[in-house]
Amino acid sequence: MLVKYYYLNTFFVQYNIKKMKQSQLVGRSIKEIPKDEESLNAQLLIRAGFIDKVTAGVYNYLPLGLKVLNNINQIIREEMNAIGGQEILLPVLAPASLWQTTGRWDSFDVLFKLKGSGNKDFTLNPTHEELVTPLIKKVVFSYKDLPVYVYQIQTKFRNEARAKSGLLRGREFLMKDLYSFHIDEEDLDKYYEEVKVAYRKILSRLEIGHLTYETYASGGAFSKYSHEYQTVSPHTGEDTIYTCKKCLVAVNKELIVEQPDCPKCGNKELTEEKSTEVGNIFKLKTRFSDSFQFTYTARDGKEKPVFMGCYGIGPSRIMGTLVEIFSDKNGIIWPKSVSPYDIHLLDLTTNKQGEKVYQKLSKSWSVLFDDRSESAGKKLKDSDLIGISLRLIVSNKLGNKFEIKLRKDEKSQIVNQDKLMNFLTKYFKK
Amino acid sequence: MLVKYYYLNTFFVQYNIKKMKQSQLVGRSIKEIPKDEESLNAQLLIRAGFIDKVTAGVYNYLPLGLKVLNNINQIIREEMNAIGGQEILLPVLAPASLWQTTGRWDSFDVLFKLKGSGNKDFTLNPTHEELVTPLIKKVVFSYKDLPVYVYQIQTKFRNEARAKSGLLRGREFLMKDLYSFHIDEEDLDKYYEEVKVAYRKILSRLEIGHLTYETYASGGAFSKYSHEYQTVSPHTGEDTIYTCKKCLVAVNKELIVEQPDCPKCGNKELTEEKSTEVGNIFKLKTRFSDSFQFTYTARDGKEKPVFMGCYGIGPSRIMGTLVEIFSDKNGIIWPKSVSPYDIHLLDLTTNKQGEKVYQKLSKSWSVLFDDRSESAGKKLKDSDLIGISLRLIVSNKLGNKFEIKLRKDEKSQIVNQDKLMNFLTKYFKK
Repeated sequence: MLVKYYYLNTFFVQYNIKKMKQSQLVGRSIKEIPKDEESLNAQLLIRAGFIDKVTAGVYNYLPLGLKVLNNINQIIREEMNAIGGQEILLPVLAPASLWQTTGRWDSFDVLFKLKGSGNKDFTLNPTHEELVTPLIKKVVFSYKDLPVYVYQIQTKFRNEARAKSGLLRGREFLMKDLYSFHIDEEDLDKYYEEVKVAYRKILSRLEIGHLTYETYASGGAFSKYSHEYQTVSPHTGEDTIYTCKKCLVAVNKELIVEQPDCPKCGNKELTEEKSTEVGNIFKLKTRFSDSFQFTYTARDGKEKPVFMGCYGIGPSRIMGTLVEIFSDKNGIIWPKSVSPYDIHLLDLTTNKQGEKVYQKLSKSWSVLFDDRSESAGKKLKDSDLIGISLRLIVSNKLGNKFEIKLRKDEKSQIVNQDKLMNFLTKYFKK
Repeated sequence: MLVKYYYLNTFFVQYNIKKMKQSQLVGRSIKEIPKDEESLNAQLLIRAGFIDKVTAGVYNYLPLGLKVLNNINQIIREEMNAIGGQEILLPVLAPASLWQTTGRWDSFDVLFKLKGSGNKDFTLNPTHEELVTPLIKKVVFSYKDLPVYVYQIQTKFRNEARAKSGLLRGREFLMKDLYSFHIDEEDLDKYYEEVKVAYRKILSRLEIGHLTYETYASGGAFSKYSHEYQTVSPHTGEDTIYTCKKCLVAVNKELIVEQPDCPKCGNKELTEEKSTEVGNIFKLKTRFSDSFQFTYTARDGKEKPVFMGCYGIGPSRIMGTLVEIFSDKNGIIWPKSVSPYDIHLLDLTTNKQGEKVYQKLSKSWSVLFDDRSESAGKKLKDSDLIGISLRLIVSNKLGNKFEIKLRKDEKSQIVNQDKLMNFLTKYFKK
């Protein structure tokens, strides 16, 4: 296995592994579907060798699955950095005292609780307001220290009684949470709108922008609304939303009685649809700064409470949602931006002609090369199941030509080498 | 804050954030040392704004700290990929049944235990043999499917009664574990030696190669020896080893009576030293494959047990160790390879002359720019505390020249712009 180092400025960067022979790939042979796995996303991801079930709501990520997850994370990370977010890492374990301070030790209903040494109570954080608020309190004293934007992409936990939806509802799941800290509500409101724009960019890069509605939901006790990002998923969506086709805005079921029109354009013709929540944003205002007595010295010398916002998006949940909505009877259809490899190269020749092509293409793109001694039928079937966005075939029948097929299309095309290189350069340049 | 996208092949890669104004950096103001923090590494890392203590053995990582951790991870990842390792991600939560299968539910003395819904028992994995063995059993059936090498870089847990050593002994800590699976002991032995070479590369890139001894330790019930990687740490090392200066090999205290000479060259003059364990490698042989009845069909048609090896290295522990051994009374001295930024640029001018230099240098290198309205003395002091490997000063006194100082050196030099660019290009080219 060849590993490439790119020397760029002062960083040695190793771009994942850009090439992989399928005969070596760990995960290739998992075909056994756990009998208790009901959800489409888990069934397909397990059959295709992306994940493996440990117990309800808890999964192993195999190499292909981790690649997709990392691709999703990287898109999110870039857009968080672009709006000034600084990445941090917070712990899984929290002492009960932090959750008691906010009153959520008793009220948060899916908290895992455990004992540490000395019989002390701990939880596994399902969200991190209880950690990030006292942390940022330590670095913010005056209005000059605000605003602050920090985010984390890490594993969180919910002790779900019913975890039957694959990656859509894990007991252990990946979350990105961005937390913002402001001098007042006006500054929070302004940043909240910036995050909305960043979320639109993320969703668009994930190729679910057109399917995802900014959905008005209850803001709880301290804000009129919060916003959920709900992706329409006709067959398997767990939520019901009422969508306005003009605005990509929707209203959550819980709000539809008091808010029967589009909150943005007043459109009265909303469509009832099933959907999956992939993110949510929330004006926390002073809910948590009050609990931790987190104030700052304002310009006028007075102590004032810090205003907070939180902005979640679930990479593992997005991975499951992508499979639910981008798949057919033959398998997964990954969006190009998160596909585990750029190209799935199938060698259907009897004399290993694919090897040269593999070496050449993997200089420019990431390639999974099916070099196995399997039948053409099996290779084609596995390729559809895995769902890499572009498939390329080398075969004796094709001679010096190649068959290109996008996973999402029905048709394929036969091209010579020049046309192939032009096609690939164009396809991946964006 | 500017975010750069590099278009390289088909990947959009955003290289962390390559530039940061210190006035914006989250973590800059943490000066308060927790009263119960005894260890040098935690004291310095907290004072310098890399980490923040949540409770004994549990830390938040601030932006600077996460950068160092990621730099360490990336070095390890590249060397694991280079010896055929495929990265996977395993869960934090494991059902008790997996740990009962190996008999370690009762015998492993620092297991966190907790209840999930339905009153089921779970643990937070301190190590992942119980997960990876049944996982790989699902994909390996015949000798043709072996060997398999998989690794993970992720958070693990130990319910330590005494967690007073900062990042050296966390209840929650980062680990890389590589697991290998083989047809027989001979193949395991061969790969074990390959991993040793990879570990030497990692240690050398971390600049602790010359201080780290491959230390013979007990192999437990199923192997004569295991090997620990022990880094000499005269003041704070928790372990005692007997080092052979000729071989970079040592003997652990527990073995020194039965093995008083260098196991490699027979040298009888071993030196007693204090050290910290940063990694260990272990021939598990059939200990775990036996528990999970993990066999494969051999070339001769017989079912044979799979042989396993495991290879650990602790990124968070390494981060703590680096601080313990590379620091002075003024602060941390990061090795160039893991320094959170390439250059710490201090603007000591009265008219913000540093801004132009910052913009120019950050095109080629990652730069932390001290643009704060603080005194020269405070900026110099903070720079020494943070410990970025190269410091650059712009000041009115220097005019068009610059002062370059490596954090590890006493002396600095004054250079003009041409010499500066030559120096930097040379310094970072390696």
